[in-house]
Amino acid sequence: MPEFHTTTYRVSYADTDRMDRVYYANYFVIAERARTEFLRDVGHAYKDIEASGCLFPVRNCHARYRGYAVYDDLLECRSHIGAMRHATLTFVTDIRRAGSDASLVVATVELACVGENGKPRVIPEALRDALVPYLAEA
Amino acid sequence: MPEFHTTTYRVSYADTDRMDRVYYANYFVIAERARTEFLRDVGHAYKDIEASGCLFPVRNCHARYRGYAVYDDLLECRSHIGAMRHATLTFVTDIRRAGSDASLVVATVELACVGENGKPRVIPEALRDALVPYLAEA
Amino acid sequence: MPEFHTTTYRVSYADTDRMDRVYYANYFVIAERARTEFLRDVGHAYKDIEASGCLFPVRNCHARYRGYAVYDDLLECRSHIGAMRHATLTFVTDIRRAGSDASLVVATVELACVGENGKPRVIPEALRDALVPYLAEA
Amino acid sequence: MPEFHTTTYRVSYADTDRMDRVYYANYFVIAERARTEFLRDVGHAYKDIEASGCLFPVRNCHARYRGYAVYDDLLECRSHIGAMRHATLTFVTDIRRAGSDASLVVATVELACVGENGKPRVIPEALRDALVPYLAEA
Repeated sequence: MPEFHTTTYRVSYADTDRMDRVYYANYFVIAERARTEFLRDVGHAYKDIEASGCLFPVRNCHARYRGYAVYDDLLECRSHIGAMRHATLTFVTDIRRAGSDASLVVATVELACVGENGKPRVIPEALRDALVPYLAEA
Repeated sequence: MPEFHTTTYRVSYADTDRMDRVYYANYFVIAERARTEFLRDVGHAYKDIEASGCLFPVRNCHARYRGYAVYDDLLECRSHIGAMRHATLTFVTDIRRAGSDASLVVATVELACVGENGKPRVIPEALRDALVPYLAEA
Repeated sequence: MPEFHTTTYRVSYADTDRMDRVYYANYFVIAERARTEFLRDVGHAYKDIEASGCLFPVRNCHARYRGYAVYDDLLECRSHIGAMRHATLTFVTDIRRAGSDASLVVATVELACVGENGKPRVIPEALRDALVPYLAEA
Repeated sequence: MPEFHTTTYRVSYADTDRMDRVYYANYFVIAERARTEFLRDVGHAYKDIEASGCLFPVRNCHARYRGYAVYDDLLECRSHIGAMRHATLTFVTDIRRAGSDASLVVATVELACVGENGKPRVIPEALRDALVPYLAEA
């Protein structure tokens, strides 16, 4: 089992829609926050990664909705690395209510590592090493 | 080949992020607009579908990013139905710059048909009939 | 009376909140769309203004809510110029349902004209001339 | 001097626009978060206020921009009550970088107290009492 990185998030009015749920696209914003704090906590703030000339645009993303969050929910986001290749990195974030075991939404986001010229480049070794403990793969 | 439904969308400042691109989650908002107009144009405005007691929460969504849109781009969204089951409906929206053949982003959104009690229900026959010409499946 | 520039906007699910209304901050996004089309229609697309080295960051904004828009409303946005100084420009956008005389929200946005160095600069004369017919002031 | 309530907020990619700043409307989302935590901390979670039949739609809002926040900034939001009438309540939130004295944006949001029928009603006394220490007025 890989390790998980955990953050919390409070649902705001702005996140909700008329069905009184978090609007489907907004879980990807929550997932972005989760992976930003994940990277910071392993010593590689995304802002610094970018400043070093390494960008991580999203190549694919997927969300599976088993439930939904409502206004003022305190959510717990458990993230791990689903896959790490030479030049792609996949974050998986499982979103549930704090204190609950029931997964509401799982967001999977595959990022490509590219240089400032937009060309693929190898993920920096220090970042790779920092993420290995969270990698689900064998 | 299925028919396509086409809408256009103008990228606003609000859609962009600091990379000067449309933020990854916002393509799902654009896709929502595209499928709303699609449904309206085949005679089934989503507001009316909801009022009739039939809701379509999102069960899965996926986006594949091959390119990106920038501020003030006029986008063309070509939508078709990727799959239609008894109680699920999948919209596929291919987003490109107007007048271009290069796909930037393809968003695939699977909706479940549920009643007001949240239980699955069969997609209304009139809606199904209206969408058949846009169905990609055999 | 000044002239008005008019655009329409369709309220999406993403715009709404759990009260089944357009979330209060989102009227400013609608107002941004209105002033972008306004500028384009008078021959000065904002993208081109920016490319010429002239930026218009927001200095003040205000909204007064007399009513609210709901999902799928077709809104009519009537904009004019509330004030034009040497280096500031104020857009006023009155948002109502299409075909209705009742104002829902009035958004007032004061922009500063600055150069790429961030310092105030005089609004380009061609832009000024294009906006004069829409100016409410004496 | 009134007391201030303080919260922090981390700027996400989603908050930014192509100018590499927080998009102007998004400060109102940040201000919503600040007032939600303010109310919770004085013992009146907004969700509970709503459940008791008391709603607070926004009547007016204003923001004055003296600076701007960028990606990954940790912001400090200091809120107080600018005015409290029988049926209206004004929150003022001053947004700055954590540890800085320079105000970036001040957001002022006037809420009306209404019942579930949409008619004005007096702000509940317990809520009023809880907010008095934060009231700027004489």
